[in-house]
Amino acid sequence: MGPRWKGKGSELKALANPISNSISDLQSSLIESNSQGILSGSTVLLATNPQQTDLLNQTCFGRPVITVDKPNQWFQFSLEEAFYLYHSLKCIKIVDGNHNIKTVNELWDYMVSKRASFPDFFKAYSHLRVKNWVVRSGCQYGVDFVAYRHHPSLVHSEYGVLVFSDGNGNRNGNDRLRVWSDFQCTLRLCGSVAKTLLILHVNRNGEDVICSSPSCLDGFSVDEQTITRWNPERCREDQAAVN
Amino acid sequence: MGPRWKGKGSELKALANPISNSISDLQSSLIESNSQGILSGSTVLLATNPQQTDLLNQTCFGRPVITVDKPNQWFQFSLEEAFYLYHSLKCIKIVDGNHNIKTVNELWDYMVSKRASFPDFFKAYSHLRVKNWVVRSGCQYGVDFVAYRHHPSLVHSEYGVLVFSDGNGNRNGNDRLRVWSDFQCTLRLCGSVAKTLLILHVNRNGEDVICSSPSCLDGFSVDEQTITRWNPERCREDQAAVN
Repeated sequence: MGPRWKGKGSELKALANPISNSISDLQSSLIESNSQGILSGSTVLLATNPQQTDLLNQTCFGRPVITVDKPNQWFQFSLEEAFYLYHSLKCIKIVDGNHNIKTVNELWDYMVSKRASFPDFFKAYSHLRVKNWVVRSGCQYGVDFVAYRHHPSLVHSEYGVLVFSDGNGNRNGNDRLRVWSDFQCTLRLCGSVAKTLLILHVNRNGEDVICSSPSCLDGFSVDEQTITRWNPERCREDQAAVN
Repeated sequence: MGPRWKGKGSELKALANPISNSISDLQSSLIESNSQGILSGSTVLLATNPQQTDLLNQTCFGRPVITVDKPNQWFQFSLEEAFYLYHSLKCIKIVDGNHNIKTVNELWDYMVSKRASFPDFFKAYSHLRVKNWVVRSGCQYGVDFVAYRHHPSLVHSEYGVLVFSDGNGNRNGNDRLRVWSDFQCTLRLCGSVAKTLLILHVNRNGEDVICSSPSCLDGFSVDEQTITRWNPERCREDQAAVN
């Protein structure tokens, strides 16, 4: 199943505006304005200027928040998104409610304290983002993420993503697909919304014990696996018999 | 969400032919012909005469199997279906491959050996069947059963059913709905196929240890719970504001 572009001209439009370019522009702009995200529970808030608002919308990081704070626009990021901007793109600082800048290790501890599986989810998120996939929450479809080839206004998401991990028993992985009925449910739903189920296995490679800083991420590896229904007709030796 | 009848006249047709009547007829017919089901792995096979074929189709027990054994029709039953005909309706005997009639305890042991959660699934299955719901496998929708108000040719299934149990830790229950993404997936799928998610909690009430015969089923109780998405608009105090 290839990408399903939304309407005529979308594919050309996407080709003319690679996501990677927009991300570079976003990165420069946020660095230039010395942007600081504010920790707020399990999210990070960031005030943006109109150019940054535009670039964040283009690259699908966070979601705009409606406030009365004019002319600033505010964006709310998930933990993965915020840490990607902070640690991978190195284009924002992150402060706590008292405007104290967090060190990388403080931030890491904070995020892991919010969700024990954060290292695995962040590894999976960044694994797709560095390949210039647009990654959004999959909660609408009962998966961890959905991945788009380009901006969601131009193309439907191609993959529903579930993140699995060998870290610390099940705690850092995903308590999914243990029984057939869950498999059947997930595949049926992905099929009905024209997505392919992509499993990202995060292998901690023994980095379990020392996962106290983001440097442990370098020791992680990611295996990709797509799962689709087996269709006897499509798998027959005699191709002429199909259809 | 009420029943969704298939086409005009289906509701009247259903009212004129209650499932309970067809089940009584089936029961009499199978008793009269001294019917014997044959154990075959995790299924039971039964040869039927044309009247029984008709009644089994009407009541949705088992599924017809295509064979060259004319004029007999063969039906294949799941473990729950076979045990319901055997133990609840008492209208068939069950034999092994050597035509030896199984005692009730032998049969019980066999079914539990095929699936440790059989007592819970059978309890849930019979809980719905005695209320004259038509119960079929839910594997197409990633649930344990689907429940119809009448024959599937007249009405769409109303409930997707998952079976949970407090028996023996997780082994006899269902490894489902442990994480939000599974919840979201199941609710989204049920919604998209217009079913309500029905959870049947089978409480073993301490019958765990002595569940060595079907008599333990009498000690089980079943709690019913439907799960639907919360819709803020529908829950507002000011009803006039809706729509």
